[in-house]
Amino acid sequence: MAVITIVGAGMMGSALAFPARENGHEVRLVGTHLDREIIDVCRATGRHPKFGKDFPEGVGYYQTEQTASALEGSTFVICGVSSFGVDWFGSNVLPLVPAGTPVLSVTKGLMDDEEGGLKNYLQVWAQMCPQACLNAIGGPCTSYELVAHDQTEVTFCGSDPAVLRMLRDCMKTDYYHISISTDVAGVESAVALKNGYALGITLSVGVNQRVFGDDVLHYNSQAALFGQGVREMKKLIAALGGKEESLAVGAGDLYVTVYGGRTRMVGILLGRGLTIDEAMKELAGVTLESLVVATRVARAVRKRAEKGLLKLSDFPLLMHVDDIINHGAEVNIPWEKFTYERL
Amino acid sequence: MAVITIVGAGMMGSALAFPARENGHEVRLVGTHLDREIIDVCRATGRHPKFGKDFPEGVGYYQTEQTASALEGSTFVICGVSSFGVDWFGSNVLPLVPAGTPVLSVTKGLMDDEEGGLKNYLQVWAQMCPQACLNAIGGPCTSYELVAHDQTEVTFCGSDPAVLRMLRDCMKTDYYHISISTDVAGVESAVALKNGYALGITLSVGVNQRVFGDDVLHYNSQAALFGQGVREMKKLIAALGGKEESLAVGAGDLYVTVYGGRTRMVGILLGRGLTIDEAMKELAGVTLESLVVATRVARAVRKRAEKGLLKLSDFPLLMHVDDIINHGAEVNIPWEKFTYERL
Repeated sequence: MAVITIVGAGMMGSALAFPARENGHEVRLVGTHLDREIIDVCRATGRHPKFGKDFPEGVGYYQTEQTASALEGSTFVICGVSSFGVDWFGSNVLPLVPAGTPVLSVTKGLMDDEEGGLKNYLQVWAQMCPQACLNAIGGPCTSYELVAHDQTEVTFCGSDPAVLRMLRDCMKTDYYHISISTDVAGVESAVALKNGYALGITLSVGVNQRVFGDDVLHYNSQAALFGQGVREMKKLIAALGGKEESLAVGAGDLYVTVYGGRTRMVGILLGRGLTIDEAMKELAGVTLESLVVATRVARAVRKRAEKGLLKLSDFPLLMHVDDIINHGAEVNIPWEKFTYERL
Repeated sequence: MAVITIVGAGMMGSALAFPARENGHEVRLVGTHLDREIIDVCRATGRHPKFGKDFPEGVGYYQTEQTASALEGSTFVICGVSSFGVDWFGSNVLPLVPAGTPVLSVTKGLMDDEEGGLKNYLQVWAQMCPQACLNAIGGPCTSYELVAHDQTEVTFCGSDPAVLRMLRDCMKTDYYHISISTDVAGVESAVALKNGYALGITLSVGVNQRVFGDDVLHYNSQAALFGQGVREMKKLIAALGGKEESLAVGAGDLYVTVYGGRTRMVGILLGRGLTIDEAMKELAGVTLESLVVATRVARAVRKRAEKGLLKLSDFPLLMHVDDIINHGAEVNIPWEKFTYERL
């Protein structure tokens, strides 16, 4: 039996308590300072306030001030903070993790720098805490569907095959299927980028509601954007040092995100003609990681293009999303720019 | 002004009359022997019986016995027959097309042979009619959405760049966007394969209706199958001599087909637990190209595997679809077989 400590009691971190505990491991769910009420509810009811189902019997719930004791004796630690908590986790939790204890992160995203560099969160944390054993989960998995035991396939990535095998063996169930890969750059880039591109694809849903009415759902335009998203993601994964083979992880993840909640909502609102400020107001209180990743990646791509390292014309969908969310542009999907000649 | 003759008055061929005629070309829509009533209706009403919108003014309608005169003076000929009419088109229409007149086909599929070979329809026709100038349309495009002017992006493929440019210039509109590619093997393989894989993905919709009830729609499992479909298609496209870059065409096309009509219907019925015979009965009269392509490709893959040219274990989704539709297997999606180690 392993001891699995999950830091961050948001939906995704909390959902991982299900396979972990169902496999008979000791599971400690630790809230951050933002999760105080969630932990209170979990303790009182045995259920996460956003889930439709009780946690498996025996999960332990911890408030943030109990983090150090919860980490003690852990076989590994799952990081379930949102992408807005990446620095916080690196500064406040990672230093408490005993050397050699693996960390498995579900937090997805990229950080850009002045030079047009883009780091995934494992790279960010490795700089903050060079001795940490860092791994991550990528692939299509919405938390509430995992809780419902919908069949789910993900990829665990990291640099040490033995650690990846241990993590997989602890977490796999008959509904949670786990591949393992050492292509951290590829998997982490793919699953971060998909948030930005899902927003791009769902623009067309909103545009079509304007053009054809709310009841008509067309797929040609969504599929055109999906294909373009895959093409741009492929180029970006390569530019970030990832391997081609991880594109399929991104394609599956893009598929599920188009139908997911928050990113789809903002894409549709923008497509309907709301400005980004109006859309943000409408979705008040909702964390919009898709906006963050699209902004950062677009900023890095523009810098790299200035240096002649890549061509902006290879990323018309990303550029349009960036123009809408950061530069006041109206939605006007540049369909012709998606076409190409391969002769 | 060009003269564009469309042979086959099914939905896809007929839909192409819209961009063609809206661009001011002379358009001749020619029914096959199976389309007699459709042509009668078009002549009487100016509307295809399956479309919710009239044809643009001025389209000419021809019965099958007028094929030769309709072909006369054509700038190019669009082949809009179903995949069950491929031999018929090669034997009866291609010989009537004047030498040098390009043909642009929307018919998608692959034919296998005793040796495990798989030919796309351009290759089949090239054997029947070596002097023909053959081109094809790939990419995500459902006919009724094209008719509705949903934004659509497709790829025209063929061997002659000048011909591809001419075809594009005649057909492109502000809603029908056209890329051109000489990777015929890649584009044609991708868009044929997607029918088989869309069936595999939609199995999970039916399975989930059984497990969770009709009202619950989960995407984790669909996305897992989507990712697996992309991985298997990538390997097959390479095995058929296609270029990697055409995978995005297949991914977009796969996306739209999962939401399309017939293939989705059969996948869901099988997923619910119907046998293939029961599903076929339920869908009586519906042409199921997905079953044909899955069967042929699986047969070829098994033969190639016997010869040691590829590994069956790389295609667990295709094998399962084949087992269900051709070998009496029950739906039992082999989730663990989709996982991998890339270390």
